[in-house]
Amino acid sequence: MMQLYVGNKNYSSWSMRPWVLMTQFELPFEEVMLRFDGFTPDSRFKQAISRLSPTARVPLLVDDGFAVWDTLAIAEYLADKFPERPLWPADRLQRARARSLCAEMHSGFGALRSACPMNIEAALPQIGAKVLAEQPAVGTDLARIVAMWTEALEASGGPYLFGGFSIADAYFAPICARLRTYALPVPAAIEAYIERQYTNPGMAAWVRDALAEKEFLDFEEPYRSSRD
Amino acid sequence: MMQLYVGNKNYSSWSMRPWVLMTQFELPFEEVMLRFDGFTPDSRFKQAISRLSPTARVPLLVDDGFAVWDTLAIAEYLADKFPERPLWPADRLQRARARSLCAEMHSGFGALRSACPMNIEAALPQIGAKVLAEQPAVGTDLARIVAMWTEALEASGGPYLFGGFSIADAYFAPICARLRTYALPVPAAIEAYIERQYTNPGMAAWVRDALAEKEFLDFEEPYRSSRD
Repeated sequence: MMQLYVGNKNYSSWSMRPWVLMTQFELPFEEVMLRFDGFTPDSRFKQAISRLSPTARVPLLVDDGFAVWDTLAIAEYLADKFPERPLWPADRLQRARARSLCAEMHSGFGALRSACPMNIEAALPQIGAKVLAEQPAVGTDLARIVAMWTEALEASGGPYLFGGFSIADAYFAPICARLRTYALPVPAAIEAYIERQYTNPGMAAWVRDALAEKEFLDFEEPYRSSRD
Repeated sequence: MMQLYVGNKNYSSWSMRPWVLMTQFELPFEEVMLRFDGFTPDSRFKQAISRLSPTARVPLLVDDGFAVWDTLAIAEYLADKFPERPLWPADRLQRARARSLCAEMHSGFGALRSACPMNIEAALPQIGAKVLAEQPAVGTDLARIVAMWTEALEASGGPYLFGGFSIADAYFAPICARLRTYALPVPAAIEAYIERQYTNPGMAAWVRDALAEKEFLDFEEPYRSSRD
């Protein structure tokens, strides 16, 4: 049985990606939750994860003792291990395009990620309006997200970015959560895509767990002093 | 014929990765050089690349009119297109480990990349000593590089990270160039690996071209006011 190590579901956007992917595709795995208590070397979280992975970060996949770290490598590992499942689009060019979008996500969108940290439980529309007004780079990131999703959905016909649900959708699930928490404005077709993500089994299960969490982590909360 | 769009060879570390990979594996491609004149929207560079790619960045691979952007997606595209070539390690677990290292490189090592921008032609040992002394995060990045390379080389037996030259080595070729330019201290086994990278056909050809370039780009040169 594979183990997937994740952080708090309300906050850990990188953990969310492989968890949603594996849940959506019904791949067998055991979840191991390492709750965040800080990211200093002496935190319980860092003490625990650093024994398992040289990067000391979640997510981490362990398969029969073999550690696979970094979200994109985990996704590729699963695609390799389950070649009969359409984790990537079956068409070679569509697969290449999906990988371009995921690689772009993997290293980019720093302004959006920094200004709008994932916080599934929160509703922060005023913060969203404020960061969009004050930080042009957030608007640039948002415009690129809208453009890439629009193009992919139109080319594939939907309902997901490349037709059926794929790694690309799992990769952008946390972005959907950010767009909703901060109520960032998007066209109707993109709002409908976000709604489809929220109601698919993988993301719905993650969101349900996130909402059931009770922790308020001040180091993950630049905009609130408590849960509402 | 595939076209690979790259930036100045002395400076463009991301361009270097697929170019070295394709050259080393003798994959047929036409190089298209888009020289950097700045990264503002009105620069000739940005004007040219934004017509070809939505991210407006190099490297960009165009195969029969189909654009593949982002270095990791380009590498995966080539591995997909040429399955008979060992671009990734043949063993599934070794391939997973190589992908973990590349994904780690893709989104990490920010301190090293920021403090020690690639500059193949330059020799900046005093800057290297200074940033190591003043920026602990650079030392942390360096230690992680040394640890991951050492573990991979010892596990595979070398001469490259996973035995034969693979995408992982192409991914770390620009790091080898940085370590050498800034004379960052590494163990003898790692110095020998860097030397092997410098003398392999792919990297040797890139370095030769970089040294033949004459441009001095002030926006790429935080530490010099002219070529020596």
